[in-house]
Amino acid sequence: MSGSRKFTNDYSELCHPDVLAALSRAAEAGEQNTAYGLDKHSAAAADAIRRVFGLPDGEVFLLTGGTQTNMTVISYLLRPYEAALACGTGHINVHETGAVEGSGHKVITCPGRDGKILPEEAERLILLHADEHMVKPGLIYISDATETGSVYTASELLALRDVCDRHGLYLFIDGARLASALTAPGGDVTPELIGQVADVFYIGGTKNGLLSGEAVVFRDGSLCGGFRRHIKNRGAMLAKGFVLGIQFEALFSDGLFFRMAEHANGLAEGLRKSLRKAGADVTGSSPTNQIFVRLAADAAETLITEFGLERWEVHGDGRETVRIVTSFASDEESCRVLGERVAGLLRKK
Amino acid sequence: MSGSRKFTNDYSELCHPDVLAALSRAAEAGEQNTAYGLDKHSAAAADAIRRVFGLPDGEVFLLTGGTQTNMTVISYLLRPYEAALACGTGHINVHETGAVEGSGHKVITCPGRDGKILPEEAERLILLHADEHMVKPGLIYISDATETGSVYTASELLALRDVCDRHGLYLFIDGARLASALTAPGGDVTPELIGQVADVFYIGGTKNGLLSGEAVVFRDGSLCGGFRRHIKNRGAMLAKGFVLGIQFEALFSDGLFFRMAEHANGLAEGLRKSLRKAGADVTGSSPTNQIFVRLAADAAETLITEFGLERWEVHGDGRETVRIVTSFASDEESCRVLGERVAGLLRKK
Amino acid sequence: MSGSRKFTNDYSELCHPDVLAALSRAAEAGEQNTAYGLDKHSAAAADAIRRVFGLPDGEVFLLTGGTQTNMTVISYLLRPYEAALACGTGHINVHETGAVEGSGHKVITCPGRDGKILPEEAERLILLHADEHMVKPGLIYISDATETGSVYTASELLALRDVCDRHGLYLFIDGARLASALTAPGGDVTPELIGQVADVFYIGGTKNGLLSGEAVVFRDGSLCGGFRRHIKNRGAMLAKGFVLGIQFEALFSDGLFFRMAEHANGLAEGLRKSLRKAGADVTGSSPTNQIFVRLAADAAETLITEFGLERWEVHGDGRETVRIVTSFASDEESCRVLGERVAGLLRKK
Amino acid sequence: MSGSRKFTNDYSELCHPDVLAALSRAAEAGEQNTAYGLDKHSAAAADAIRRVFGLPDGEVFLLTGGTQTNMTVISYLLRPYEAALACGTGHINVHETGAVEGSGHKVITCPGRDGKILPEEAERLILLHADEHMVKPGLIYISDATETGSVYTASELLALRDVCDRHGLYLFIDGARLASALTAPGGDVTPELIGQVADVFYIGGTKNGLLSGEAVVFRDGSLCGGFRRHIKNRGAMLAKGFVLGIQFEALFSDGLFFRMAEHANGLAEGLRKSLRKAGADVTGSSPTNQIFVRLAADAAETLITEFGLERWEVHGDGRETVRIVTSFASDEESCRVLGERVAGLLRKK
Repeated sequence: MSGSRKFTNDYSELCHPDVLAALSRAAEAGEQNTAYGLDKHSAAAADAIRRVFGLPDGEVFLLTGGTQTNMTVISYLLRPYEAALACGTGHINVHETGAVEGSGHKVITCPGRDGKILPEEAERLILLHADEHMVKPGLIYISDATETGSVYTASELLALRDVCDRHGLYLFIDGARLASALTAPGGDVTPELIGQVADVFYIGGTKNGLLSGEAVVFRDGSLCGGFRRHIKNRGAMLAKGFVLGIQFEALFSDGLFFRMAEHANGLAEGLRKSLRKAGADVTGSSPTNQIFVRLAADAAETLITEFGLERWEVHGDGRETVRIVTSFASDEESCRVLGERVAGLLRKK
Repeated sequence: MSGSRKFTNDYSELCHPDVLAALSRAAEAGEQNTAYGLDKHSAAAADAIRRVFGLPDGEVFLLTGGTQTNMTVISYLLRPYEAALACGTGHINVHETGAVEGSGHKVITCPGRDGKILPEEAERLILLHADEHMVKPGLIYISDATETGSVYTASELLALRDVCDRHGLYLFIDGARLASALTAPGGDVTPELIGQVADVFYIGGTKNGLLSGEAVVFRDGSLCGGFRRHIKNRGAMLAKGFVLGIQFEALFSDGLFFRMAEHANGLAEGLRKSLRKAGADVTGSSPTNQIFVRLAADAAETLITEFGLERWEVHGDGRETVRIVTSFASDEESCRVLGERVAGLLRKK
Repeated sequence: MSGSRKFTNDYSELCHPDVLAALSRAAEAGEQNTAYGLDKHSAAAADAIRRVFGLPDGEVFLLTGGTQTNMTVISYLLRPYEAALACGTGHINVHETGAVEGSGHKVITCPGRDGKILPEEAERLILLHADEHMVKPGLIYISDATETGSVYTASELLALRDVCDRHGLYLFIDGARLASALTAPGGDVTPELIGQVADVFYIGGTKNGLLSGEAVVFRDGSLCGGFRRHIKNRGAMLAKGFVLGIQFEALFSDGLFFRMAEHANGLAEGLRKSLRKAGADVTGSSPTNQIFVRLAADAAETLITEFGLERWEVHGDGRETVRIVTSFASDEESCRVLGERVAGLLRKK
Repeated sequence: MSGSRKFTNDYSELCHPDVLAALSRAAEAGEQNTAYGLDKHSAAAADAIRRVFGLPDGEVFLLTGGTQTNMTVISYLLRPYEAALACGTGHINVHETGAVEGSGHKVITCPGRDGKILPEEAERLILLHADEHMVKPGLIYISDATETGSVYTASELLALRDVCDRHGLYLFIDGARLASALTAPGGDVTPELIGQVADVFYIGGTKNGLLSGEAVVFRDGSLCGGFRRHIKNRGAMLAKGFVLGIQFEALFSDGLFFRMAEHANGLAEGLRKSLRKAGADVTGSSPTNQIFVRLAADAAETLITEFGLERWEVHGDGRETVRIVTSFASDEESCRVLGERVAGLLRKK
C-alpha cells in the first residue's frame, strides 16, 4: 500500500509542472518585474481571465489564500452593520477561525441543502432581518463547488442572482474549487454564467495546481475603486505579486485550469463508481473531486492511516464518514489501489 | 545602458537559484506534505532558525509578507486599547495603508533619528500616555535595518529593551531586512542579540531572495499559545505552508541567508564609495543595501528612467533624492555601469 | 380603554420617582462632581453593589445601555480569535445589529431550551471547536432573566460554571433584567450566587426604573486592569458618570432595586393567572415581567393597538403571539383593564 | 475661598434647571414614549435643530457622549482603508483612548495653529497620501470651539470646505462646544454657516447644560441611510432615547442653547480681563469659556487645589499652565473670588 499517493486533500502537492516551469523560466531569465501586482504577468493573467469568463470590463486582483480572499472581499463589500448570508456549512462560517467576524461582520446562516443555499431560505432570512436591531444582509456568499463537493446548477445560480437583485444584495462566489465546478460531469454552468451572475467571484489556484493564489474578479470597475488600498490594508498585497501573476498566466494557458480539474474530477468519478460497485456507502451528491464514504469505524481507521483520508464525521451508530480527495497530482494507479483496498475491507466484514 | 539591471528595490526578482532548486526538488519528487505549516520543511526551517538565533525554546511561524506580518503580530500582542510606539518613518506608520489601525490599534510616533527610535523619546512618550484617556503603549516597534537603511547598534537595542522592561512593553523587531542589518559593515549586532532583546521579531524573506515569506519568531512558547488561530483569523495561514517551509529551509542552509545579504551590502558599499569619489551627495547613514543620493532634478530623472530608481524626496531647492537598492541578484557590472552613469551626469553639470 | 397604560416594554417610562428625586437633590444642591465615573456617588453605588452581591473585592463600572455593555465586556474578555457562546435567542445574537461581531468576535449559538443554554450542549460546542480552523470559545454568555422571561435555577448556573471551569471559559451574565430574575416567584437564585458563579455580570438599570444605566461587576480586580481604558476606547465612558452614579446609588437604597422588580413580577403573575382563568393560551415558562399569549390574529391586532403590545411571532396557523410587559410603572388597574379586555376578546369568539 | 465653585471643566454639574424641569414634567405625567429615539420629543428636538441650523432636510440623531459620537460618525463615513485628517491637538487624536483607531481608522495629523487646521496643510497632507500604500484621507475632522478654546472664522471654514470639495472629502465638525463657538465674542460664524459647510456635525449637550447628549446632524438624508443600524452596531442606541429627546427639546426652547453658552463665555471674558489687568500671563487665543494662564508652579498648585483647575502643561522653565473653565453653572461671585485670588498670588511674588 505504501507506494500509493495520499488522498487527504487537494493542497498537499507543490504545483503542476507547467506552473513550476513558468516560474523557472522567469527566474532563469533574471526577470525584474514591477512590484505589488502591477507587472506584465499579472496583466496577462487578468486578460486571459477576462476572456475566459466573458467579462471584457472585469477587474482582476491576485491574492494568496482562500480565507484571506473571503475576508478581504467581504469586508470591502459590506458596511459595518451589514452581514454575509451563507450556508451553515459555508467555509467562512466554519473553517476560517472567525476571519469574517474578525473584520467586523456577522455571518448569518441558513441550513441549505447539499451545501447549497436555497433561494427561498435566503429570501426568508433577508426579510427576517428587516428590523434595524438586526444586521442587514449585504451579500450572499456561496461556494461553487461547495465544501461537500456539490455544484450549483445554472438555474440555481440565476435564482440567487434574482434574490440579490430584488433585495439589493451582492452575490459573491467563493471559487476555491471553481474549476472543479465548471468541469463537473453533468454540470451546466459555464465560466460566462459565473461572470454574469456574480458581482464578485474568485478563482481558486491553491486547490487547483498552483503554489498558492486566488484571483478575485469584479464584474467591472464600478465597484472596486478602492480595492487595491483595501488589499494592502488587510495585509494581503504581495510585494512580489508577479509570483502570482506568472502562475495565473500559466494556469490560463493551454486550458491548464480546466485540464487539471477535469483530471481530478475524472479520477474521482471512476473511483466513485468502483467504490459503489464494491458496495461502499458513498454519501452526498458530489460530482467533483471530493468523495465521502461511510464505513465501519475500523475500516475508516485503516483508510485514514494508509491513505491519509480526513475523518469527516462520526455518526451515532459508530460508523464514520471519511473524505477522499483527488487532485491534479492524483493518478489512476493510486486510485485503483485505494478502490481495491476499500473493496477488500468491505469483503472482510 | 539598456543592458544594466534595475536598482528599484530588493523585491523585483523571483528568488535565488538555490531556493528555486529546493522547490523544484520537492515538486519533482511528487512530495505530499501536511498542510497549514505543520510539515517537515517548516519544522526543519524552525529548527535552523532556533539554532541561528540562539533560541532553543523559540517558536517559529511562517507568514507571507511584511505588512501582513506586522499587522498579525501587533494585533496579537496588544489589548484593544493599546498602541504600538514607532518611529515616524516606521513602515507600519507610513507604508501599510493603515493595516495596524485597521486591526484596531493606534500607532504613536516619535521623530527618532536616522529612522531609529531613541530610548529617551520612547520613555517620554510612554510616560505621556499614562493618562487613561490616551491609548496605552503596549509595544515598541522598530525595524532593523530601518526603512532608510540604517542599523541599530547593540547598545541601542539593549537600551530599548531596558525601556520595555521598566515599563512593561513588548519589543517587536520588524526584520524585513534583518539579514542586511546583521551583515552590515561595522555592525555589532549578532543574531543571538536579536533573539535576546526581542520578545518577537521576524526574519524577512521577501527582500532577501525568497519568492515571499517572513518567519515570525517568539522568544519562547509562553506568549504564543493562540497565535496559530490568530494567524488564521487574520487570513494569513497558507494551506500550502510547506511552500514557505521549503524556502526558509533553503534560506538557512549553507548560510544562504547571510551570503545573499553580504552580497547586496557589499555591492552597495562599493557603489557608495565610487559615487562619493565621483562627488555625488550620498545622504543618510545607511551601511546596508540602500543608497540615497541627492541630485539635480534632470540627473535624477535620467537615473529614474534608466535604472528604475525610486524618487525618494523632492527638496525645496528643486533637487531630488533618489534611492538605489541592491539585492541578491545585483551584479558588479551593473553597479559599475550605474556608478559611471552618475559620474557622467555629475561631470556634465 | 384609552385610560390604561401600555404594556409595550419595560423601558417606556423615564424613571422611578425616587431616582428622579436623587438627581434633583444633587442638581439643586449645585453639586460639582469629579468626571468620568470617579465621583462619590459612583463609589457609593459600587459599595452597595459589592454588599448586595457578596463580593467584597468586586469592581464595578457604570455604563449606559445593554448592547454597549455586552459589546464592551465581551470585546474586553476575548482574544481576537475567540468567540462568545450563546443561546440562539440570546440578545447579542439577534437584537444588537451585530455589535459583538462588529468588535471582531463570532457568536456561536446553540438551540438551548426556554432561552437557556444547556450545559451539555455548551460542552459539546466547546469540544467541537477544538480545531484551530474554528474560533475558540472564550466565554459563555447567558441572560438572566432570559429574552423570553425565563430564569435560571441555581443548579443550572452551577452546572454552567462547572463547564466554564473545566474548559477555561469565562461566564458572563447579561443582567438587563437581573432584578426580575432575582425576585421571580419560585426562583432559587440569590445575588450572592450570581456573584459567585459569574466572572463578570451586569445589573440592568434601563429596564428596572433608571433613566438609563447598567452596572458591570467583575468578581475581583484581577481581571479588569485595563477595563477603564477599554470603556473609553469603545466610546462608553460618560463625562458625567455621576449621573449614573446617583441613579445606581438610589437604586440600591432601601431595596428599590428589588422592590421595583417585585412589583412588576407580581403584577405579571396576577395578570397571567387571570388570563389563564379566562382561557387564554399563555405560552412559555416566564415567571417574570414578560407574558406571552397566543391569540387569533384579530384579537392580537386589537391588543397591539389598544395596549401597545409587541407582536412576538406569527404562527403557521395564522394565530399570533403577543408580548405583555409590566414594569415599575405598571399599576393594578391597568392590568385589570387589560385582563378583562383579553377575556372579552376570547368570549367573543 | 472654600465657598467658591470649582472651575475644573464644563461637565461637573448635572444640568440646567430648565432641563431637569422638562424631565420632571415628563416623569410626573407618567409619560410612556416610543423607544430607541423614535419618540415625539426627539422628533421635536430634530425639528428645532433643523430650524436653527437652516437645514430643512437635515437628519438628526441623538447620541450620548463625545467620544462615542466621533467614533460612530467617523467609522460610518469612512471606508476601511480611509483615514480622518485632524489637528494634532484634536480630541480624536489625543483624548479618546484610540477609539477612532479602535474602529479601524488611522488619524492623520497636521500641526495646525491655535488648535485649528490650516487649509494649506490639509491640502498638502491629502496630496501626500495619494500613494496607495498610504491610507486615503476620507474626511477632515475639526472641533469648533477647539480643544484650546479658539474658534474658526467663517472664511476659515469656507476654505476647509473648499479643500474638501476639491479632493472629495467629507467635512465633519465636532461641536462638543459648538454653542461656545457660536456665541464667542467677535465670532462671525452662524448656525446656518455650520449647516452649510459641514457634511455632518454634532451639537454638544454634555458640555452645555445637559445631563448628557450630543445631536448628530447630517445635512440631508442622502448620506445617512444606514446610520441608525450603525448607531446600534456601535452600542450607541439608547433604549430610552426620549431621555435625550426631552433634553434637546428643552435645549432648543427659548434659546437656552445660546443663553447658557453666552453666560459661560461672558463670565470667561470678564475673568480674562481682570486676570490680564492683574498682570497674569493669559495664553492662547480663546474667546470662549476656557482660559489658560501661565504661572509660577506654587501659584498654579494653589489654584489647582482651591479651584480644581486642571494642570494643562508643565513648561521647561518650571512654570505651569492651568486651565480655567466656566459653564452654565458658574457665577459672577465665584469668578470674582478666583480673579482676586490670582491677583493676590501674583502680588505676593
